[in-house]
Amino acid sequence: MSTSEIAIQGTSITLGEIATLVGGQLIGDPGQVCLGAGVPDEAAAGEITMIDHAKRADSISNCLASAVITPEKVDIARSQIVVSDVHEAFATVIKHFRPLSSTAMPASGVDATAVIASTAFVHPTAVIGPHVTIGERTCIMPGAVVMPGATIGEDCVLHASVTIYEHTRIEDRVIIHAGSVIGANGFGYRFDNGRHVPTSQLGFVAIESDVEIGAAVTIDRGTYGSTRIGQGTKIDNQVMIAHNCQIGKHNLICSQVGIAGSCKTGDYVILAGQVGLKDHVTLGDRAIVGAQAGVMDNLEGDNVYLGSPATTQREQMQIMAVERRLPEMRRELKRLRKEVTDLQQEVDTADRRAA
Amino acid sequence: MSTSEIAIQGTSITLGEIATLVGGQLIGDPGQVCLGAGVPDEAAAGEITMIDHAKRADSISNCLASAVITPEKVDIARSQIVVSDVHEAFATVIKHFRPLSSTAMPASGVDATAVIASTAFVHPTAVIGPHVTIGERTCIMPGAVVMPGATIGEDCVLHASVTIYEHTRIEDRVIIHAGSVIGANGFGYRFDNGRHVPTSQLGFVAIESDVEIGAAVTIDRGTYGSTRIGQGTKIDNQVMIAHNCQIGKHNLICSQVGIAGSCKTGDYVILAGQVGLKDHVTLGDRAIVGAQAGVMDNLEGDNVYLGSPATTQREQMQIMAVERRLPEMRRELKRLRKEVTDLQQEVDTADRRAA
Amino acid sequence: MSTSEIAIQGTSITLGEIATLVGGQLIGDPGQVCLGAGVPDEAAAGEITMIDHAKRADSISNCLASAVITPEKVDIARSQIVVSDVHEAFATVIKHFRPLSSTAMPASGVDATAVIASTAFVHPTAVIGPHVTIGERTCIMPGAVVMPGATIGEDCVLHASVTIYEHTRIEDRVIIHAGSVIGANGFGYRFDNGRHVPTSQLGFVAIESDVEIGAAVTIDRGTYGSTRIGQGTKIDNQVMIAHNCQIGKHNLICSQVGIAGSCKTGDYVILAGQVGLKDHVTLGDRAIVGAQAGVMDNLEGDNVYLGSPATTQREQMQIMAVERRLPEMRRELKRLRKEVTDLQQEVDTADRRAA
Repeated sequence: MSTSEIAIQGTSITLGEIATLVGGQLIGDPGQVCLGAGVPDEAAAGEITMIDHAKRADSISNCLASAVITPEKVDIARSQIVVSDVHEAFATVIKHFRPLSSTAMPASGVDATAVIASTAFVHPTAVIGPHVTIGERTCIMPGAVVMPGATIGEDCVLHASVTIYEHTRIEDRVIIHAGSVIGANGFGYRFDNGRHVPTSQLGFVAIESDVEIGAAVTIDRGTYGSTRIGQGTKIDNQVMIAHNCQIGKHNLICSQVGIAGSCKTGDYVILAGQVGLKDHVTLGDRAIVGAQAGVMDNLEGDNVYLGSPATTQREQMQIMAVERRLPEMRRELKRLRKEVTDLQQEVDTADRRAA
Repeated sequence: MSTSEIAIQGTSITLGEIATLVGGQLIGDPGQVCLGAGVPDEAAAGEITMIDHAKRADSISNCLASAVITPEKVDIARSQIVVSDVHEAFATVIKHFRPLSSTAMPASGVDATAVIASTAFVHPTAVIGPHVTIGERTCIMPGAVVMPGATIGEDCVLHASVTIYEHTRIEDRVIIHAGSVIGANGFGYRFDNGRHVPTSQLGFVAIESDVEIGAAVTIDRGTYGSTRIGQGTKIDNQVMIAHNCQIGKHNLICSQVGIAGSCKTGDYVILAGQVGLKDHVTLGDRAIVGAQAGVMDNLEGDNVYLGSPATTQREQMQIMAVERRLPEMRRELKRLRKEVTDLQQEVDTADRRAA
Repeated sequence: MSTSEIAIQGTSITLGEIATLVGGQLIGDPGQVCLGAGVPDEAAAGEITMIDHAKRADSISNCLASAVITPEKVDIARSQIVVSDVHEAFATVIKHFRPLSSTAMPASGVDATAVIASTAFVHPTAVIGPHVTIGERTCIMPGAVVMPGATIGEDCVLHASVTIYEHTRIEDRVIIHAGSVIGANGFGYRFDNGRHVPTSQLGFVAIESDVEIGAAVTIDRGTYGSTRIGQGTKIDNQVMIAHNCQIGKHNLICSQVGIAGSCKTGDYVILAGQVGLKDHVTLGDRAIVGAQAGVMDNLEGDNVYLGSPATTQREQMQIMAVERRLPEMRRELKRLRKEVTDLQQEVDTADRRAA
């Protein structure tokens, strides 16, 4: 998914207009229409993406985007807009396609521009923002809030007081229990002159079909693109999933798990209660992580991991078995020390006698 | 408590009608009226319960239920309905007595069938579903949602945006702080053909008198019967209590504790911050578990436990003391290795000389 | 900040009237007007404070308060009110200045006594209690609830379903994401006759300027005075900060961190995900605590800490390195034992031969 699918207003813009908007130099046709903006992995044909270093030009060879924002002219068979600050320029373009407008919510009920399927149920105390779409038979319970540009598929249930931030995209048969918050800003700051200054948090959350999300869960939006929850994944209460994470299909994520930014999990991964994942960690298909473990590095699939830092169950069980014998080991070490020292004396004495 | 106490509509049904409803074979009087359905520990006289294996017939000898759903004819002095799938049949019966109807909420305010005591305060932005009862002097704050069939006693306070799911039963003088979610579905799935399929989550949460619950707490309903919080227990913010747990009286459960499914705690248990309990663990009266501990096995009462996996404080303190000396122990081990090897050479040399 | 700044009704009272109210003996001018009540660190000139033991008289020598509630006559150059139960008396005085009145909320929208800046946006489904003030350009999203006597500065955003309890004081440019709960009661109980009885939770939360708070965060009010979040501090989702904590300026507190009561952090402290702090712990400026660590004691600033119980990164890395070699160490220890025993025999035999 990229911005074009969820653009919420008359956002038609040409590359020439974008170049003017971001104060960049266009290499390409100024009249070419741009349909949206997305990170390299997510941008569609007709859209614009970005690379923040010229040496990354190769990395987008498979990207579908028709134009690229670059920090300098690169050798690449697409339109380019060269700018001095790629991140600032890309943020500006994303804001054009996905404007953030917290105060745009209707006074109550459903905004006039929202499209609600005829068989959907929206409780009158829920608030549905502009340009939201809600599919057939979906049920929005009391006090739920759906902010501008979000899309919700068919047969979903948003329970009481769920908050869906702007541009969240939810597919079919998704259930979200009470109090969960989908799409809040990621926790990203840069340090500038003694202060933590927020970085851009312009992405969105994408929740695929048949996902179930417990109560009081928080899933943050991506930086520019998606935080994604794969099809059929089940998430228990009080789980936290940070910005840019790409959670695979049919995962089971138990209560109070915390997943830091930009982690990826394969399919059929299981994370037991209170597990923590460091940022940018990747877990292979069918990896299983035991309760309270702390994952600090990538873990291969088809294995069970325990401990903090997490290692294989096999290794961890050995370590744990020894840990319980540590006091005994220490006493044995002291006994050995004494015996060896005694032996040394004895041998020295024998040596002297023999000499 | 069983379903009969909280049946929310004309649910009178005979055993004959139940047999027809579930496609089972009745052994007993088809005209016998059934008043409700409950798990063996909770079913009352006049109600129906179930056993999912014939060999469990003995285990319900003290159960008060008047009828039993069984997988085959068993030798038992009660009415029986024999079915091919006990869980499916029992789920059908529970849904008869405790129907789930998310969209049954009134447009706003209090449903016409709810019974609100004259001295209770219900804020106009709260939403109170059908067949709810609210006792004298109880205060329901803005944005709180109470779903169908829940009962709330006297002198309770539900703070802002609290969600009470269907059939929750709250006794007197219970305080629940803002954002807490009581009675969401348990996290139970069976794996079928590559997908996680939700299992029945048809039970309820029972909160006894004088319980206090902090902010953003989640307590899930039982599978068929109760998740229970015992009288006088105090629960801090962001605690998670999973389905079927039976928490004792006068417990203190500190912030961010996570208790997996079907755990039991005795009376006067204390769980410090961020403790985790594995599912099906039982803690004895007055057990104390230190911060961040991970309880993997049953723990006896009247003792203090630390660590993950949690063991007695005494044992854990010894282990921790040694752990801090591990680098020193490793060096000592290396020194001993060298000295023993040297000694061996020395003794060998002496032996050779002596020979 | 002290109560006088946020007194929400005609609360003018003299020391003589206070003495009568609490049944105490006044040593001082009964006509002296008292402007508020605060703990020693926070009370302003013209206000009353308390000491719960005569020997603490010295500790308030720098306190600005004009009067003191004391358990006995002490030698101190201020007005005194001597009472038998200092805590009960002080609680009574605080309740006079900061009355708690949960049911005082308006039926919907903004209470007539609230003062809302002309450029502020309050969504019609939000509920704003009596004597609340909201500054210019502040945005209150759907379903947010602001309870009596709270003050919110300029350019703030309270997202959907945020709850702000009574007397919370929020400065400028503060952002609070959906579902967070600010100012609920602290988790404080005394054990009396087999029951946990709540202690006074009469304080408030003070959030300084430029603080950002994620989704589903809980920050509890102080016992009598403040729980304070320092200027520029950023707090991620699902963080818990308990009563009386004093968080410094420009901290970064990552997701699912739990900070127990009365902790203090310096400036520029960083707490990684799932860290826990024991109550009454103090962290120095620029202390950094790694993910999942458990802080049991005060930690000096300008250092990095890991583990549970947390020690310096340097020490912890050494311990962790050895822990992974524990099974190998145990085997080596067994080998050494055998070799030493063999050596002893050999030496004994040699000795006997030599003898």
